Amino acid sequence: VRRLSAEELQTLRSIVGDPHVLVDADLTSGYSVDWTGRFQGSTQAVVRPGSTREVSRLVSWCLEHDLALVPQGGNTGLVGGGVPLGGELVLSLRRLGDVGPVDGASGQLTAGAGVTIAAVQAAAAAAGWAYGVDLAARDSATVGGTIATNAGGLRVLRYGATRAQVLGVEAVLGDGSVVSHLGGLLKDNTGYDLAGLLCGSEGTLGVITAARLRLVPPLGERVVALLGLESVAAMIAAVGSLRRQLPALEAVEVFFSDGLDLVCETFGLARPFARRRGVFLLLEAAAATDPTDDVAAAVGALPGVAEVAVATAGEPARQAELWRYREAHTEAINSLGPPHKLDVTLPAAAMARFVELVPRVVADAAPESRCWLFGHAADGNLHVNVTGVDPGDDSVDEAVLELVAALDGSISAEHGIGTAKKPWLGLNRSPTEIQAFRRLKAALDPGGILNPNVLLP
Amino acid sequence: VRRLSAEELQTLRSIVGDPHVLVDADLTSGYSVDWTGRFQGSTQAVVRPGSTREVSRLVSWCLEHDLALVPQGGNTGLVGGGVPLGGELVLSLRRLGDVGPVDGASGQLTAGAGVTIAAVQAAAAAAGWAYGVDLAARDSATVGGTIATNAGGLRVLRYGATRAQVLGVEAVLGDGSVVSHLGGLLKDNTGYDLAGLLCGSEGTLGVITAARLRLVPPLGERVVALLGLESVAAMIAAVGSLRRQLPALEAVEVFFSDGLDLVCETFGLARPFARRRGVFLLLEAAAATDPTDDVAAAVGALPGVAEVAVATAGEPARQAELWRYREAHTEAINSLGPPHKLDVTLPAAAMARFVELVPRVVADAAPESRCWLFGHAADGNLHVNVTGVDPGDDSVDEAVLELVAALDGSISAEHGIGTAKKPWLGLNRSPTEIQAFRRLKAALDPGGILNPNVLLP
Repeated sequence: VRRLSAEELQTLRSIVGDPHVLVDADLTSGYSVDWTGRFQGSTQAVVRPGSTREVSRLVSWCLEHDLALVPQGGNTGLVGGGVPLGGELVLSLRRLGDVGPVDGASGQLTAGAGVTIAAVQAAAAAAGWAYGVDLAARDSATVGGTIATNAGGLRVLRYGATRAQVLGVEAVLGDGSVVSHLGGLLKDNTGYDLAGLLCGSEGTLGVITAARLRLVPPLGERVVALLGLESVAAMIAAVGSLRRQLPALEAVEVFFSDGLDLVCETFGLARPFARRRGVFLLLEAAAATDPTDDVAAAVGALPGVAEVAVATAGEPARQAELWRYREAHTEAINSLGPPHKLDVTLPAAAMARFVELVPRVVADAAPESRCWLFGHAADGNLHVNVTGVDPGDDSVDEAVLELVAALDGSISAEHGIGTAKKPWLGLNRSPTEIQAFRRLKAALDPGGILNPNVLLP
Repeated sequence: VRRLSAEELQTLRSIVGDPHVLVDADLTSGYSVDWTGRFQGSTQAVVRPGSTREVSRLVSWCLEHDLALVPQGGNTGLVGGGVPLGGELVLSLRRLGDVGPVDGASGQLTAGAGVTIAAVQAAAAAAGWAYGVDLAARDSATVGGTIATNAGGLRVLRYGATRAQVLGVEAVLGDGSVVSHLGGLLKDNTGYDLAGLLCGSEGTLGVITAARLRLVPPLGERVVALLGLESVAAMIAAVGSLRRQLPALEAVEVFFSDGLDLVCETFGLARPFARRRGVFLLLEAAAATDPTDDVAAAVGALPGVAEVAVATAGEPARQAELWRYREAHTEAINSLGPPHKLDVTLPAAAMARFVELVPRVVADAAPESRCWLFGHAADGNLHVNVTGVDPGDDSVDEAVLELVAALDGSISAEHGIGTAKKPWLGLNRSPTEIQAFRRLKAALDPGGILNPNVLLP
């Protein structure tokens, strides 16, 4: 990596203002490592632009000087896609924090790339609407980062992933040019779907600076239920039945007995059921009118359910307790040391076989490790976490991802490819497809300066 | 346009088989003109491949011989995007007619590009599912064509446009390479969204040969209502209220008194109401249980509704009668001669002003013409049809589209840009955006042989 000269640093300061170019290691270190600690990079400068125009000037300048940059939002990614592993400059978009007014007639708002998901949710709620995306990292994850990764989360079943919420974006392409399409018209076939293409491109095609987001009507009455089941087969059958029988279904999460044990021990929580069960489903249903009876009827009709705990609309504290069993998994596992986190999708028909085989495959690759599974059951999306493995040892990752591909699953459900899965993109995508990706990359980032070390092998 | 040699025609025959290369004018003429008769082209050959492999060989051969081609599905497009206006070869995809089995667990199916929308609907229904897209051209419009144009239609309000139904595609890019991603996983962030990019690209980036489509649960109980209103302002208020009050709402169509008069006269239909009204809304609500009471309550709460006719779930013939007032518009207008058809979206706040101004703008540009409006009210999508204008006279188109852009609307809602609107893409898209489109086009179609005369100015 070429050293920046004093003159070059001065140019960066002239673009964004002195206080917004960070060079001291104690200031840049937080931007150089992901929050799990697995992906550790370094950077000569973190640049914090305050406008789309400044982003454009920065990208143009980087292209001219052949300097690579990594766009970064809330730095909550899990695949090493937002940290400077190759010594790139970090372009932090967090200062792009404007939230525009909610258009009440159409249910839309425009938000800057640095706005957190929690802030979008709050702005929507204040105007009588809701945002269709929710995820555990809501207080840090940003609009720009969630679009760049096409983030999924807890409500994909009902509202789709982030791409389905994006009506248009403003972005800076790799030559510094600005594209902006924030009108928010519901039908608008005027040229190629640039917004959809940028969504999920992990900062490799353009830097998203703002987005027009679709909101959804708020559903005030929520019911949460935790089910204990004896087998993955019963879990799959339950999910299929619930999707058909319970239109109010908004989330169906899954975890397993060993993960529950870890969560309860780590945080000193009471166990939900007296007897130990193998598989747990956490449901949330939401509707305009109290869906308690609908949930009870749909759950009552399921075969193979050994235990049920329901928290009705009037019991928010109890609902939060039930959710905690699921949401605390990430933190509990992380307390064992930086895990290898593999985020995968399996076809419903292959889920039971995967859950059976994956611990064996992991044990073969790393006998000292432990394997934890949890995820979003209705999407077929499991998060495979492996602890007790050296961060640099990829043999477990390879073994798990090869199993996923052999079962016709996706090696990246909602976290993206980043650095972590780059070597294995070919398990899911043909050489022809990867060649097409490279041509798209060259078209929008001709100098190859935007996040050059992620996604493409 | 260069003449094909006898040897070259023989090569085409060797790729697809003798009966599938049409060269006689009486056989090719139907492929050379759009169904409204406005866009008349000519071709030396219509080639009808029977497999993705044959499409790939044809595209590779065309690239090698510098011959342009126009992909064509059901030829129901309205913007001259699927006919050989520059003497291109026509690549008819209608023989790619396979419909795969419905995956009942996930609610998905794979269909060839040549399968009609009606056939997708039938296959879905036979397995207890439904397809989210419906449009008047359902018996001719194909999977490939509706994806290439991101077709909208009657159910966008509830299920989104075609892009929202597409889980993956198989396509041949401009260099003849085949990309295929038909696994149908709900979460799958493995690289760029090629399927979404091809969707709406109007055959300029690749030739779609098959698609994996998302199905939706069938909603058996349908209620149709026709409302007579006195003003566009009352119509806009009604749409906003219905969207919030009636979750079962599936379609909200709009037409006006002059269009209704024309339809009733052309087809000898009885008028729906004794008194003449200015604006009509046609609603359809669909649910698992009879939504008649919900519709009655929601409609009863609307101010400004002068007349109401309801056809309940038990009156399918009456429902079809009410729908006919709306669906017969296209044919009734077409009977006056080939219309100029402009398909536009307006923001809700600008709709009343547009409806007021557009007849004046049209009359100024073409005093002998007549202007007809109808469309999909909930999407802000109006179809502006102008009759009595020479097919080659673009002054009316320009005047209407400039008005749309001045009111922050989209010059192409669901029909695409094609040839018809190509000169005016710049009204909605900046030079920078169009430059980005060109670079994407060059990336996936390096020889510029795929539908070279549409979309990009």
